Amino acid sequence: MQWKGAIMYKEILYSVVDYVATITFNRPDRLNAWTPQMEAEVRAALSAATADDNTRAIVITGAGRGFCAGYDMSLLIPQQSDDDGVDLAGSSDNFNQIFSYLLAVPKPIFMAINGPIAGFALCFGVFGDFRYMAEGAKLTTSFARRGLIAEAGVSWMLPRLIGTMNALDLLCSARVIESREAERLGLVRTLPAENFLATVQGIARELVTTASPRSIAVIKRQIYLSHFQSLAEACALADKEMKAASTSEDYKEGVAHFVEKRAPNFTGR
Amino acid sequence: MQWKGAIMYKEILYSVVDYVATITFNRPDRLNAWTPQMEAEVRAALSAATADDNTRAIVITGAGRGFCAGYDMSLLIPQQSDDDGVDLAGSSDNFNQIFSYLLAVPKPIFMAINGPIAGFALCFGVFGDFRYMAEGAKLTTSFARRGLIAEAGVSWMLPRLIGTMNALDLLCSARVIESREAERLGLVRTLPAENFLATVQGIARELVTTASPRSIAVIKRQIYLSHFQSLAEACALADKEMKAASTSEDYKEGVAHFVEKRAPNFTGR
Amino acid sequence: MQWKGAIMYKEILYSVVDYVATITFNRPDRLNAWTPQMEAEVRAALSAATADDNTRAIVITGAGRGFCAGYDMSLLIPQQSDDDGVDLAGSSDNFNQIFSYLLAVPKPIFMAINGPIAGFALCFGVFGDFRYMAEGAKLTTSFARRGLIAEAGVSWMLPRLIGTMNALDLLCSARVIESREAERLGLVRTLPAENFLATVQGIARELVTTASPRSIAVIKRQIYLSHFQSLAEACALADKEMKAASTSEDYKEGVAHFVEKRAPNFTGR
Repeated sequence: MQWKGAIMYKEILYSVVDYVATITFNRPDRLNAWTPQMEAEVRAALSAATADDNTRAIVITGAGRGFCAGYDMSLLIPQQSDDDGVDLAGSSDNFNQIFSYLLAVPKPIFMAINGPIAGFALCFGVFGDFRYMAEGAKLTTSFARRGLIAEAGVSWMLPRLIGTMNALDLLCSARVIESREAERLGLVRTLPAENFLATVQGIARELVTTASPRSIAVIKRQIYLSHFQSLAEACALADKEMKAASTSEDYKEGVAHFVEKRAPNFTGR
Repeated sequence: MQWKGAIMYKEILYSVVDYVATITFNRPDRLNAWTPQMEAEVRAALSAATADDNTRAIVITGAGRGFCAGYDMSLLIPQQSDDDGVDLAGSSDNFNQIFSYLLAVPKPIFMAINGPIAGFALCFGVFGDFRYMAEGAKLTTSFARRGLIAEAGVSWMLPRLIGTMNALDLLCSARVIESREAERLGLVRTLPAENFLATVQGIARELVTTASPRSIAVIKRQIYLSHFQSLAEACALADKEMKAASTSEDYKEGVAHFVEKRAPNFTGR
Repeated sequence: MQWKGAIMYKEILYSVVDYVATITFNRPDRLNAWTPQMEAEVRAALSAATADDNTRAIVITGAGRGFCAGYDMSLLIPQQSDDDGVDLAGSSDNFNQIFSYLLAVPKPIFMAINGPIAGFALCFGVFGDFRYMAEGAKLTTSFARRGLIAEAGVSWMLPRLIGTMNALDLLCSARVIESREAERLGLVRTLPAENFLATVQGIARELVTTASPRSIAVIKRQIYLSHFQSLAEACALADKEMKAASTSEDYKEGVAHFVEKRAPNFTGR
C-alpha cells in the first residue's frame, strides 16, 4: 500500500492505493463547486496519474455529501474571462477540449458520483469512461433553467451515451432526475450509497488487475478514435495494434496465466 | 388564453393555447393519410409557429382514432410526380430534407401519437424532438411489406434513436409493434390513452415555461449539429453560444429567479 | 424443401431449407475455434447464399455445445502470418474488412448464438444483422485478459450497438456475461435453449416470406451506408431507391396482396 499525499493541492485531494488513484473535489462547504483552480489541480492530478507506473485507474469523487454542484455561481460565467484556467479555445484537437482531455488519459477513469452533480460538472462527468452513481443521488444539466446553453462538449457526448431524444430531454428541460432514471437512460450504473466510494475503487482495482493495463489503454483509444474513423480506418488501426500487442510483455503473461490456470500478473508493458 | 383559428387550413387544424401550438392532421375518415396538401399545410403551420413570439412549443397529433396511416394509398408513390409538395431533391442541406426540416424549427416539437402511425408518417415522426405514444397504439414502418424501401431519411435517423439492430428489425420486417415495445426500444414514451393530448400539451407547456425558450432553441440546434461535427467543432460552438447567452435577457432572468427563489419568467430573448 | 449438401466444406456445414441457409461452424471438439480454413469456407458459403435465388436469409450457428470459442489458440495470432485467410490489409472499403464484409451481403444474417462466443468470434458476431442468443449462453471479448486489443472492427461496431460506456466495459474488462445481461445491453435477443436453432430459422423464414427480399436488401444497405452519410446524402439515396422500387415486381405484389387481403408471394425482383 502506498500513499501519495495531498501535498500541493488546495481544492482537491489526491491519493493512490493499490493501483487506484482517487481525485476528490474538496470544497465540501460549497458542494464542491467548480473553480478554475480546481480544474488546474484536476489536470495536474491526471498528469501525475498518467505518469505514475503504479497507477492504473483513476476514480473521481466529491468530498462531503455532493459530487459537484457545477460552476461556482459566485464566479459566474467562466468563458467571459480569458485568463482563468487553461485556454483551449481554437484547438482543433478532438481530445484536448474541455473536458474531452479526459478521453486522452491512457487509464480508465471512473466517475464516482456520490451526491448531486449539476451543470458544468455533468459536462465533466460525461467524459469519464465509467459512471457510477450512489442510489438516491440527483443529477441535472441546469443550463436551460439559467438561460444558458449546452456547455463544453456535452451536446456532442450526451447523444452518443443515451440517444438523441433523451439528450434533448435532459438538456432542454434541465429537470432533476434521480439515480434510478439516470441508470434507466444508460447514463450511469447505480450502487448502494453505503460504502459507495470503496465499492467503486474495488471495481476499478478489479478491472486493472484482471485485465492488461496495456490492453485497456489501447482499447480506450480505439473506442474514442472510432467516433471519428471510417470502418476501414478502425480496422487498419486494429491490425497495427494487434501486431504491436503480439510482442508485448502483457501478451506473454496473458497467454501464460491462461495456460497455467492462475491469476494474471500484468505489468502494463 | 388565445386561439388562432383553423382559418386557412383544409387538411390540418392549427391552434395556439398558452405558448403551445397544436397541429392536428385532420382527415379522420382516411386515418389522416398523408397528402401533398397536408404537407404544405404542416409546413405553413410550422412557419407560423416559428414566427409567433407567443408560441414556444409545437405538438403534432391526429384527429379521430389515428395519428397518420402513412401516404395516402390512392395517390400511391409520392416521388413519381415531380410537382406535388415542395421539391427538395438535390438540396445538400442536412436540415432541409423531407422530413429533416423539422430539426431546423427553433422550438421543441412533440409528436403526440394518439393512434396508428405507419410508413411515411413514421418517417415524419422520427424527426420530432419528443415522441409520446398513447398506450395500446400501434406502429409500423410498412415499406418492406409493400415492396418499398426506407423512405425520406428514416434509414439515417432511426439507427441513431434505437440502435442499428432494432432499426434493421423495424424496417426490414415492417412488423406491427405496440406502444410498450416502442417504449422499450427507446423510440417513444408511453402515456395513458385517457387525456392523452392534454397530457402531452401539459408536458410541452411545462418545458417551455420552466426552461428558457432561448436556451432550448440553441440546445436543439447544438444537438442536431453535433451529428455532423467533430468534438472540437462542437466545443467551439458551445464557447460561442455561451458568450452570446451571457448577454441575454433569459440569462439575467435565469439567475434572478434562482437567487430570488421564485418561478422564472423567461421571454425567450 | 431442398437441401444443398455439405459437399465441399471441411470445417463448416451448409444447407438451405425453405429459403433459409444455415452455416454451422463444425469443429465441435474445439468449441468451433476459428481457423483461416473456416473463414475461407464461411466466405464461400456466403457467396453461395448470395448467388442462390432460393436463399433469402442466412443463419450462422455452431455445432455441439458452443458457438465459437474465438481464434484457435494453437494458431495464436492470425495477423502475424500474411498468407493465411484472405488478406484485406490496406483496403479502404468500409464493407470489405474482416468482418465488415458481412454488412455487404444483400440478405439478412442471423447469428444464432447457441453457446459460448468469445474473442474473434464476437468480432464476427457484431457484424450480423440480428443476434439471437440461447438462454444461459456466455459471451466475452477475451482480448484484454490475453494482453491483446479490440480486433477486427469490433471497436467501431460495438459502441454503435450498445453505446460507448457499455462497449468500454465489455472490451476493457473482458468479463464473461450471460445472455440476460447481453440482452439488457441491447447486444442480443434471448430465446429458450430448447429448439433454439429451429426457432431462429423460423424467425428468419417468417421475415423473408412476409416482407419483400428486395426491400430487405435495399434497406440493409441504406442502414449501413447511413453510418457514413450526411442526412442529405441518405435522403437522396432514398429518393433514388424509391423510384427504382416503384417499378419492381415486389412492389406490384406488395400492393396486390394488401388490396386482395392475402399473404404475399414476393419474388425478390
